[in-house]
Amino acid sequence: MERVLRRFRIQNQLVRECLAESLGVYVLILFGCGSAAQVTTSEERSGQYLSINLGFALGVTFGVFVSRGVSGAHLNPAVSLSLCVLGRHPWLKLPFYVVFQLLGAFLAAATVALQYHDAIRSYAGGRLTVTGPRATAGIFSTYPADYLSLWGGVVDQVIGTAALLLCLLALGDQRNTSIPDGLQPVLVGSLVLVIGVSMGSNCGYPLNPARDLGPRLFTYIAGGGADVFRAGGGWWWVPIVGPCAGALLGTLVYQLMVEVHHPPLPPESQASCEEASESKMELEAEPYLKSRC
Amino acid sequence: MERVLRRFRIQNQLVRECLAESLGVYVLILFGCGSAAQVTTSEERSGQYLSINLGFALGVTFGVFVSRGVSGAHLNPAVSLSLCVLGRHPWLKLPFYVVFQLLGAFLAAATVALQYHDAIRSYAGGRLTVTGPRATAGIFSTYPADYLSLWGGVVDQVIGTAALLLCLLALGDQRNTSIPDGLQPVLVGSLVLVIGVSMGSNCGYPLNPARDLGPRLFTYIAGGGADVFRAGGGWWWVPIVGPCAGALLGTLVYQLMVEVHHPPLPPESQASCEEASESKMELEAEPYLKSRC
Amino acid sequence: MERVLRRFRIQNQLVRECLAESLGVYVLILFGCGSAAQVTTSEERSGQYLSINLGFALGVTFGVFVSRGVSGAHLNPAVSLSLCVLGRHPWLKLPFYVVFQLLGAFLAAATVALQYHDAIRSYAGGRLTVTGPRATAGIFSTYPADYLSLWGGVVDQVIGTAALLLCLLALGDQRNTSIPDGLQPVLVGSLVLVIGVSMGSNCGYPLNPARDLGPRLFTYIAGGGADVFRAGGGWWWVPIVGPCAGALLGTLVYQLMVEVHHPPLPPESQASCEEASESKMELEAEPYLKSRC
Amino acid sequence: MERVLRRFRIQNQLVRECLAESLGVYVLILFGCGSAAQVTTSEERSGQYLSINLGFALGVTFGVFVSRGVSGAHLNPAVSLSLCVLGRHPWLKLPFYVVFQLLGAFLAAATVALQYHDAIRSYAGGRLTVTGPRATAGIFSTYPADYLSLWGGVVDQVIGTAALLLCLLALGDQRNTSIPDGLQPVLVGSLVLVIGVSMGSNCGYPLNPARDLGPRLFTYIAGGGADVFRAGGGWWWVPIVGPCAGALLGTLVYQLMVEVHHPPLPPESQASCEEASESKMELEAEPYLKSRC
Repeated sequence: MERVLRRFRIQNQLVRECLAESLGVYVLILFGCGSAAQVTTSEERSGQYLSINLGFALGVTFGVFVSRGVSGAHLNPAVSLSLCVLGRHPWLKLPFYVVFQLLGAFLAAATVALQYHDAIRSYAGGRLTVTGPRATAGIFSTYPADYLSLWGGVVDQVIGTAALLLCLLALGDQRNTSIPDGLQPVLVGSLVLVIGVSMGSNCGYPLNPARDLGPRLFTYIAGGGADVFRAGGGWWWVPIVGPCAGALLGTLVYQLMVEVHHPPLPPESQASCEEASESKMELEAEPYLKSRC
Repeated sequence: MERVLRRFRIQNQLVRECLAESLGVYVLILFGCGSAAQVTTSEERSGQYLSINLGFALGVTFGVFVSRGVSGAHLNPAVSLSLCVLGRHPWLKLPFYVVFQLLGAFLAAATVALQYHDAIRSYAGGRLTVTGPRATAGIFSTYPADYLSLWGGVVDQVIGTAALLLCLLALGDQRNTSIPDGLQPVLVGSLVLVIGVSMGSNCGYPLNPARDLGPRLFTYIAGGGADVFRAGGGWWWVPIVGPCAGALLGTLVYQLMVEVHHPPLPPESQASCEEASESKMELEAEPYLKSRC
Repeated sequence: MERVLRRFRIQNQLVRECLAESLGVYVLILFGCGSAAQVTTSEERSGQYLSINLGFALGVTFGVFVSRGVSGAHLNPAVSLSLCVLGRHPWLKLPFYVVFQLLGAFLAAATVALQYHDAIRSYAGGRLTVTGPRATAGIFSTYPADYLSLWGGVVDQVIGTAALLLCLLALGDQRNTSIPDGLQPVLVGSLVLVIGVSMGSNCGYPLNPARDLGPRLFTYIAGGGADVFRAGGGWWWVPIVGPCAGALLGTLVYQLMVEVHHPPLPPESQASCEEASESKMELEAEPYLKSRC
Repeated sequence: MERVLRRFRIQNQLVRECLAESLGVYVLILFGCGSAAQVTTSEERSGQYLSINLGFALGVTFGVFVSRGVSGAHLNPAVSLSLCVLGRHPWLKLPFYVVFQLLGAFLAAATVALQYHDAIRSYAGGRLTVTGPRATAGIFSTYPADYLSLWGGVVDQVIGTAALLLCLLALGDQRNTSIPDGLQPVLVGSLVLVIGVSMGSNCGYPLNPARDLGPRLFTYIAGGGADVFRAGGGWWWVPIVGPCAGALLGTLVYQLMVEVHHPPLPPESQASCEEASESKMELEAEPYLKSRC
């Protein structure tokens, strides 16, 4: 069987990375939006708000496990953007990554809608609605709380994604704490958990343009129509612009507060560092979390 | 004492593996169905839906710890089947594994019934019932939500088990992320947790023919009678067929999206890989999660 | 400061072990019974049943961290007994371990009573009562649910403690899964978590004679009087006898199902094994979880 | 980009440490007080008491990850004080650490107030109030339960912080259990979780003068006025004095019960120990958790 499958082997590195990114985001949204579907359609009998936090957190963890060795597991256009700005990811790959991240999120939203088809019909009477007491569009993408102004939403997303990137960079900074390989995805998931627990009630912590726009496009097609863009006073662009700005801010803060101040490495370390890079013959993409040697 | 026990030593590898599989599934069901019994009979005073998620998740974790070094800890006929299809497990062992997995699940259900005997009698008046407000058959095996069609159940189980296998294979793919040995069982448990949190409300995420059929056979004998097969419109076959189909689908997706595209190993690595295999003199069965060198 | 403290250094190994066991059980009960006190006196506003599960689980984790390198972190007379029977712990030390485990539990119960003094007075009107709607004795030691017969309680404790020992021995069996040192205490805590989640509602999962009798003696002195022994139809002996019997049963099951069947080690391994033992000059007590080389 | 940032490099070790401490406490309070804000303003719809426990626990974890390699991640004046007393941290640095810990906490409280600005206005009508049913000052710093006397609060904080330090020192005592580097911050977070779960209902487990006073100063400025110091019978000094006394007590207990009794290291170990210290050329600050070689 493995021999048969090996005939489908793709050697192009970028295609492989795009497939992995897409699958990683797919897993993230499948578990994340699935948990939102479960809590909503079961009317909190099979889980509560904390279940959704766990769904997205572990969704990220397994999304990272699925793609890490191949694409570096960005899983988020705002993360890809920050890494390009830092010079740790080539700008040329950025549009490809973003498109495949969006694609994975779109397909996962469709899968959740398929898996919860009967449940959503029973809960909401068969129509995907964006507003009202039985709205189900919130299963797929985020909408702001009633009290939240657009400007407040931008602030929320900038702060939330800045916190995400600040801690992500710390997790990847080997000169701060050295973390075993297999623990990284768990810690990234825990980071998403704590953001959900502490920054989720304003607008559902999107933090990730692909996570929000992909499923939103699905709900647009699947019956929500233009309402998915009109709702919340034209909310849809906030989870795209906010996370990108926040990611850059968080990157800057971590760099200026901690990372740039590390003393230069002694010469012999640098040598062994280059050696290490050379010996990495098999997998060209390096987990993005690691800072440069 | 250890010397006395050593007289009972069994040298036959297959018997050892079957005992370990059986004990592993026993532990999984003992904790999993135990948590369902606790939540049901305490009427959610001693735990809620999330407790059941934790019970099955940590049940899997400790089921894996108990059996991993001996049998590879499949604990699930659908997992055994996928590994046979992939060529990572001999077809000849498949029926033995399945029978002993079922046996472990059956015995664990009996143990839960014994431990919760007084509680079930107090809750349901002494009879194991399959339907109605005080039904207790749901402690042992899964039944669909009222709104779920049989076809919807098959879709749910195919998606759920595909997600399980996809992530299991990623956890075992050393060329994606290398995971410390002792962390694997915890991650497999976390995977079951996130599936329970995001795909549990339709029909209780069986994902595993042994986990569902073993306890169902117990409830058949213990007083539920033919109802346990008739309920839910003849639901019982869905948690057998769905997981097997889903496991194969998930295996295919991970192989085609990630694993087959890994570049071939350089010659020297392969050599050290063979050496590693040769030095494994003691324990013939290899944790299934590891992909072949 | 460290120099001043070093004058108090005790060289006697048994005294050191007893101090460590006592401190380990103290930490376990301080966090465990503390969480019960918090949930009870806040009337579930500051935590629910799951908080108590977490309190005892992480209590065990940190109890193990505090004592593991010195005494092996039994923290439970039933565990000490099983290890003596297996020949992994000297019988002569058993009574000392048990006394100091009891002492630690007693002192921790007193500390919890001190920390929650104002809260208990406000909740229950100043008297420690064993029965009735505002009973507080259940904060300290276990009492059975109304429906539970004494015989049902013994069955519950035998099954629960057997599950505990079975999995503990698997965690310590290096030839099953090799676990990094620092992860062991976390896994032992997770084991206690899953037992609490799946076997807690009948009688509060004591599993440990010291955990139950120590605080019970404290409540006897602190105002509960003879009621603490009379309640539940003379319940107090069940959490002593049940765990001891269950621990032996679980030990037997794991040995007969898995551990005795491991193939003998090849000679060179045994040699390196002896070497390893010899180089352990500093700390004589070995973490009990590890099976013999 | 990284080259541009490197121009801002600061070489002074103390400045670097102060920046890291400040950022670490900032992260801790951002997630911790954020979770309190979420639970309060959503009126427990988006999380319950356990979410706050998770927020502070993971806040500590990521606060440690952010600062550990540079400043040792004290994040708490009571911890810094204990390490000075033990001789593991220079007294001269103490005031700098404390000021920057306070500063980080103050800024984080301001960030939480900004992020939850709309939510707090909607919940409480636009004014930060210290008492009454819609009080929001409790989001930022701690206030005692109605039943708690000042003396009871001191006892609570002494016991709680003693438990914190006792376990922190055990986590750092390599001769008790050796813990992988990347796991330490997770365990420190778990420790804060269990303290929150078992010692939180009396007065919200401050345990940390900076965590409490920094946000309290912010609420003083932001509209709470002198009430933030008057409330609870002049409560504000208890979370400063109690933790300092408790930290010293816990340090003493762990030293006298476990650490001082470790047998002296054999000469060759000491040599390799010195070597290890010498080879640590890059990062002068050592994670405080490690006890001296």
